[in-house]
Amino acid sequence: MKNEETTKILADAVRALSDFSSETMVYAPKHGRSMPSIDALHEISENLRSIIFPGYFGKSRITAQNLPYYIGVNIDRTFHLLSEQIARGICFAQLESENANCELNEITAQKITAQFFKHLPTIRELLISDVKSTYNGDPAANSYGAIIYSYPGLKATTNYRIANALLRLNVPLIPRILTEMAHSETGIDINPGAEIGHSFTMDHGTGIVIGETCIIGNNVKLYQGVTLGAKSFPCDKNGNPIKGIPRHPIVENNVVIYAQATILGRITIGKNSVIGGNVWVTKNVAPDSKILQSAVRDMSFENGAGI
Amino acid sequence: MKNEETTKILADAVRALSDFSSETMVYAPKHGRSMPSIDALHEISENLRSIIFPGYFGKSRITAQNLPYYIGVNIDRTFHLLSEQIARGICFAQLESENANCELNEITAQKITAQFFKHLPTIRELLISDVKSTYNGDPAANSYGAIIYSYPGLKATTNYRIANALLRLNVPLIPRILTEMAHSETGIDINPGAEIGHSFTMDHGTGIVIGETCIIGNNVKLYQGVTLGAKSFPCDKNGNPIKGIPRHPIVENNVVIYAQATILGRITIGKNSVIGGNVWVTKNVAPDSKILQSAVRDMSFENGAGI
Amino acid sequence: MKNEETTKILADAVRALSDFSSETMVYAPKHGRSMPSIDALHEISENLRSIIFPGYFGKSRITAQNLPYYIGVNIDRTFHLLSEQIARGICFAQLESENANCELNEITAQKITAQFFKHLPTIRELLISDVKSTYNGDPAANSYGAIIYSYPGLKATTNYRIANALLRLNVPLIPRILTEMAHSETGIDINPGAEIGHSFTMDHGTGIVIGETCIIGNNVKLYQGVTLGAKSFPCDKNGNPIKGIPRHPIVENNVVIYAQATILGRITIGKNSVIGGNVWVTKNVAPDSKILQSAVRDMSFENGAGI
Amino acid sequence: MKNEETTKILADAVRALSDFSSETMVYAPKHGRSMPSIDALHEISENLRSIIFPGYFGKSRITAQNLPYYIGVNIDRTFHLLSEQIARGICFAQLESENANCELNEITAQKITAQFFKHLPTIRELLISDVKSTYNGDPAANSYGAIIYSYPGLKATTNYRIANALLRLNVPLIPRILTEMAHSETGIDINPGAEIGHSFTMDHGTGIVIGETCIIGNNVKLYQGVTLGAKSFPCDKNGNPIKGIPRHPIVENNVVIYAQATILGRITIGKNSVIGGNVWVTKNVAPDSKILQSAVRDMSFENGAGI
Amino acid sequence: MKNEETTKILADAVRALSDFSSETMVYAPKHGRSMPSIDALHEISENLRSIIFPGYFGKSRITAQNLPYYIGVNIDRTFHLLSEQIARGICFAQLESENANCELNEITAQKITAQFFKHLPTIRELLISDVKSTYNGDPAANSYGAIIYSYPGLKATTNYRIANALLRLNVPLIPRILTEMAHSETGIDINPGAEIGHSFTMDHGTGIVIGETCIIGNNVKLYQGVTLGAKSFPCDKNGNPIKGIPRHPIVENNVVIYAQATILGRITIGKNSVIGGNVWVTKNVAPDSKILQSAVRDMSFENGAGI
Amino acid sequence: MKNEETTKILADAVRALSDFSSETMVYAPKHGRSMPSIDALHEISENLRSIIFPGYFGKSRITAQNLPYYIGVNIDRTFHLLSEQIARGICFAQLESENANCELNEITAQKITAQFFKHLPTIRELLISDVKSTYNGDPAANSYGAIIYSYPGLKATTNYRIANALLRLNVPLIPRILTEMAHSETGIDINPGAEIGHSFTMDHGTGIVIGETCIIGNNVKLYQGVTLGAKSFPCDKNGNPIKGIPRHPIVENNVVIYAQATILGRITIGKNSVIGGNVWVTKNVAPDSKILQSAVRDMSFENGAGI
Repeated sequence: MKNEETTKILADAVRALSDFSSETMVYAPKHGRSMPSIDALHEISENLRSIIFPGYFGKSRITAQNLPYYIGVNIDRTFHLLSEQIARGICFAQLESENANCELNEITAQKITAQFFKHLPTIRELLISDVKSTYNGDPAANSYGAIIYSYPGLKATTNYRIANALLRLNVPLIPRILTEMAHSETGIDINPGAEIGHSFTMDHGTGIVIGETCIIGNNVKLYQGVTLGAKSFPCDKNGNPIKGIPRHPIVENNVVIYAQATILGRITIGKNSVIGGNVWVTKNVAPDSKILQSAVRDMSFENGAGI
Repeated sequence: MKNEETTKILADAVRALSDFSSETMVYAPKHGRSMPSIDALHEISENLRSIIFPGYFGKSRITAQNLPYYIGVNIDRTFHLLSEQIARGICFAQLESENANCELNEITAQKITAQFFKHLPTIRELLISDVKSTYNGDPAANSYGAIIYSYPGLKATTNYRIANALLRLNVPLIPRILTEMAHSETGIDINPGAEIGHSFTMDHGTGIVIGETCIIGNNVKLYQGVTLGAKSFPCDKNGNPIKGIPRHPIVENNVVIYAQATILGRITIGKNSVIGGNVWVTKNVAPDSKILQSAVRDMSFENGAGI
Repeated sequence: MKNEETTKILADAVRALSDFSSETMVYAPKHGRSMPSIDALHEISENLRSIIFPGYFGKSRITAQNLPYYIGVNIDRTFHLLSEQIARGICFAQLESENANCELNEITAQKITAQFFKHLPTIRELLISDVKSTYNGDPAANSYGAIIYSYPGLKATTNYRIANALLRLNVPLIPRILTEMAHSETGIDINPGAEIGHSFTMDHGTGIVIGETCIIGNNVKLYQGVTLGAKSFPCDKNGNPIKGIPRHPIVENNVVIYAQATILGRITIGKNSVIGGNVWVTKNVAPDSKILQSAVRDMSFENGAGI
Repeated sequence: MKNEETTKILADAVRALSDFSSETMVYAPKHGRSMPSIDALHEISENLRSIIFPGYFGKSRITAQNLPYYIGVNIDRTFHLLSEQIARGICFAQLESENANCELNEITAQKITAQFFKHLPTIRELLISDVKSTYNGDPAANSYGAIIYSYPGLKATTNYRIANALLRLNVPLIPRILTEMAHSETGIDINPGAEIGHSFTMDHGTGIVIGETCIIGNNVKLYQGVTLGAKSFPCDKNGNPIKGIPRHPIVENNVVIYAQATILGRITIGKNSVIGGNVWVTKNVAPDSKILQSAVRDMSFENGAGI
Repeated sequence: MKNEETTKILADAVRALSDFSSETMVYAPKHGRSMPSIDALHEISENLRSIIFPGYFGKSRITAQNLPYYIGVNIDRTFHLLSEQIARGICFAQLESENANCELNEITAQKITAQFFKHLPTIRELLISDVKSTYNGDPAANSYGAIIYSYPGLKATTNYRIANALLRLNVPLIPRILTEMAHSETGIDINPGAEIGHSFTMDHGTGIVIGETCIIGNNVKLYQGVTLGAKSFPCDKNGNPIKGIPRHPIVENNVVIYAQATILGRITIGKNSVIGGNVWVTKNVAPDSKILQSAVRDMSFENGAGI
Repeated sequence: MKNEETTKILADAVRALSDFSSETMVYAPKHGRSMPSIDALHEISENLRSIIFPGYFGKSRITAQNLPYYIGVNIDRTFHLLSEQIARGICFAQLESENANCELNEITAQKITAQFFKHLPTIRELLISDVKSTYNGDPAANSYGAIIYSYPGLKATTNYRIANALLRLNVPLIPRILTEMAHSETGIDINPGAEIGHSFTMDHGTGIVIGETCIIGNNVKLYQGVTLGAKSFPCDKNGNPIKGIPRHPIVENNVVIYAQATILGRITIGKNSVIGGNVWVTKNVAPDSKILQSAVRDMSFENGAGI
């Protein structure tokens, strides 16, 4: 039982927080239409993993006989879920215009979704190349299955490759939400706009950041905490950042980058290079280079415990 | 069906693990009262996000007409949930005393919760300033909505601002659990005791640590992996750390700190400064400074593959 | 309603993605047996935390009287769940052999699970030492309970100590999935093969990586972003990495390693040493050393805003 | 693991049961559109009960202050759910026509749903009269609240009054499903087409059947097992029953009918009559009548135990 | 998207339905306190069945070793759930008084609940006698277990015996809700106030009604559709029925009553009697009687098909 | 917080209720093996309805293209669920023998389940005949779909036809649980042992009872409350009923039986007969008969209100 003063405070809070004329409501959706649903996108993401790696997720026991049934049901359901979310995403992106006819988007969304599924076998091929390169590069990996079950690098790459395919089909918002879901689970943040070749490996992975305009070749390996980021970016005359300008690194084939390295700007890390951990790189690196942090200081004789 | 030996081993384990006289039970709650519930705090956290950013989370389609209903129900429910958890938190903090009268805390908890809701519109204003500064500072952000939906920096800041308000109302334990929930989801660890100004941006965010006695000005931007931590701390004569002493950095207005920088101790990073990535800073930095890691070593010609 | 072309595209996708003769299916389980279940392992992990730290998780109010009931039920249920998952893990590891008799594994799995529960009181003792060292080392920790509720370092250590015990009992796959679950929640990646002494502390924790062959002494403290990794590893004549060779650091008693330090290879960090943040260490460090990054560059007067 | 023969049998069953050319598929929906959802209708039914009798169902604690919020949210949500189900119901009823444009129904469905909500306060008034007459007629009823919480007669009447209102708005299929839900829960089967006055009481209720063309006055009371049914019905020249012809009883004001009475055909039970239990009535009953079963036979001296 | 008129209709409905001054709100709880929860009572009912018949419900595999754990946890949880619901029930019954101090009821409720559990072993003994008499009286029953798993008569008797025990401890409202839950599941309506001896059998059971003041001896068997009801009841000078007056039958030991028999009023069915189906009995029946319906009419030669 | 006395009472109750030496534990399963699961059988029952009547239950939108996927997945899942429950049912039936090798039953159970699925298309054919006869006999039925969605008679017949098929394959216990589930939902109690021809109709249905040894021809129609039961049964020399003796009616083709008729014993109701409501029949009825209750008594002028 609330007392009278509490009742009044709560009523005031309701009023203040639902005041559509308040300045703080500029961000609120005003169209009364369904918004993209985080829960639905979670389900879509789980379903797609089950389609790509059958047998590992969910309760079913896969055989050659029953696999088409499971794949069929999963694709049918995910088609409906995903095309609905894509339609909502398109509607969301149009929401500034009062006259947006969100209903028309449903047909567009279904066409896009069909194209996505056409592309899905290729996505699976790329992910299998990622599983293999991860297996070959990690003495602690005992089987392909262990990687599929539990390696965060593969999970983040899976969501990225899905999101990237959707972005190429001009789907707004949804791709970013999908990679952020993987970011939340794995600590690996890959912008869906980045381009990444085959046989990509991220070991441990936590803290990796790959920016929107990165171009990464084949057979590249990144360790935890690696940043492929932007150094600075030009603004327009209103002081707003100009969107879409190339501002992240190009990483060529066969490069390895060790933990916590920070590589910023539209520079190129030449093929076959090795970048050591904890370095700060803002300039081009020639092919076949090996870059390390400068030597540490040994302060052992200066002061006692602590730093 | 367990065989006889297994049955015996399990019975022994039950006995050993429920032996209240064992030394390992010093930490176990002994009062037989309800403990704070992680599940309830998750629900509270979700509800508060729905109140602050209506329309983005949950299934409802918001209009000017129905918004007061949704805000009203959400505040009513969250009031009950939160005041119960606050009461449990207070009881938990008193548990050493055998005579703690936890029942009395319910009225206190309701008063505190009402004060919290009084403050909630201000929290929303601050968070809107954070959304705007994030939008302005990130060329990859296409809309306010995309940030609200999926940016981990905003999620962590939201939980922090809620937790900080509760801590100022002297709520024990609960604020820390709330920021740790966001930590788990985002990899960003902000202690609820830190003070952070408006227009705060964390880009990518994974690995950021902001300590208990940090003071951060307005319009500050941090990149992933930045630590604002303690260097060392004085202990009392029993060797236990003295709690509550200022030991974390002060970061003034308009500072930018790049990825993986580690800044330790009660030092001041002067206004408008730029701190490069991967540096280790334990001394004051003057206003308008620009600090970078020392130059890397190019080892390309020394030995073959690997490091 | 899908149109005809969409229907055809989806049917083609089903066919392509369920084609067992396709090369991309090399990784798919072909035995038609139940695979390890992520959901079940989540439940097991939650149950074990409830057994080790009674009263903190779940809805029950613990007293000396009812504790044996709760511990008893929890152990009984977890015994069945865990022995089933162990049996599935063993079967999974044998799956290459067409003649694997997975049914026989059930008895083996029950014996292993019983041994695990025999060891559980010891695991609790070690974890209590970790709680205490965390409490003593963190001025921001107000009580043991706050650490148990919400410290990610303790959560990751809990899953590690469970997984390590299972690995010593020769359980395949399951230990790695358990530590990866904690990795996903906390950003802390500890390989179950590592050996870690008592009174282990990880502060904040996000981004910590501890490799498979690490040996860590007692009373060690790691900060966020610390890597104890491998530098390179020998391959066999087919170019595959040789598994199981010692390749990660030995960290002796009482060492403290600050944020983002990267320590690689089978080197030894001598007892009582302090390693500063953001350093790159690939050589032995003598006992009682203090190692820091080389001094930063002050570029304040070079160019304007940004880096 | 299934053996080969089992695998074959199952594959055959899949083929046989999904053969769209089979005669047993005449009843299957062929339009590929969403069908009415039993789960959604359950939720709608629960929501409407919460709106009509606030405070009894769900977790919320109702006060004069928060009631509008709860009613508002409940009506908003139920509006969307119900109008979607009505649209599906209309589409289902049109499904024979290949050219049915089910999309157009959404607007119609929203209009119908709005009219339904306009009528809802009247439905509540009628139900309150039912609660009062039940209370007055049952010495075992201690409070209005006990009736609202747990009396099956009221639950069945609630669903009937809702379904009847929808039927008057020409909604197909959905009304019948709603009354069958109450039938399943209570054993009381009221066709939504029946007309029932105010202050209606059903005591115990199990087995009551009220046919499609019944007309029941005010202040009528029925006991368990009462049938108000049809005797026989005319068929058309193809032998199919002609739908919609009045064929069930008219029960005038203030009639009481005792347990298990079976009353069939378009007859009238005159006002103020009392019909005893277990009778079979197929002819008109004058007002103020009292009808009983013929006297029982006492067979006590004929044969031993049993019958 | 709702159009304007719909929006207005809904807003009007919200206003009308949340108008606390409206006459239709007389029944609404006004105290702002928690009401009894149907969901919690369902859980309580399930738990008590698991305690009484261990091994049949839930997922656990019972052995002599683990049974005490399961019973212990179940009783501990159910104690808290039930005492909370009893406290709410008492508060509900006091709600007319504005000054009701519902908080005080918690201690009373805990005492009552403890007394209930003290009585629970006796309830189990009675139910076992019911299982045995059901087994002995039904040639279709193959085992005690089949009866426990699936016989609705036993389910209804279980809830009745629980509810009756609570009613004897003066718990308001809750007992009736518990028997109505069983009524909904089984079609058997036993008022918790009835008194029923041991070895009670209900075969099939649907439609059985046993009134509030019934007294039933030992070893009685009822078939489906039997009513033990009230004929009429005296009203006070305001025309309200006087509550609590004996008005239902007394059924002595060893009586069998066949399907659909309706027995009304405070009459006595003497011991060892057999009552045939479909009879209407409103007078005393001597011990050892056998009562049948009067002979049927054979109308075969009167008119054609139908009736 | 429980006080001391309560704590003691609860501890005593735990002890008393888990005392395996107590007489009340004779019925408890002692084998420590998994028991049949009501929840799993619910899921099986839902799945089979979805397979038989695709498109009506669940969320999927059926087309000729996707139907095989849904049927395939549903049969695959249900095969595993059902064969596990059958194995548990067989084990349960063997539980008296201490040496029962329940593991061996799994292969038997899989074979039985395969045979059941072989028979499923025939079950669907029979149910379609039931849908058609229901449609033809009920002027209130507007479409086949309405019957499939919501008619309790069809639901009970569906579970009966499934259970009868399992019983013919000698599955113990499970068939009875399946028909009791339908009994609980519909109030219709059909013993799985009864034999029922095609084109079977039950209108309204609540309270219908069809005994274990009934034989019902084709094209039979029963109304609510009809009992086809046993009159008495022979006992063996220990006084236990002899199981399996024919003791229920034979109902020939084209018979109609009206509401609440009670027909007992191994008698024959000849073809084309019509039995009126509320009669008690214990003797053979010749073909083409029409049987009615004896005429009612009109007591209108005897005494005032009530009965």
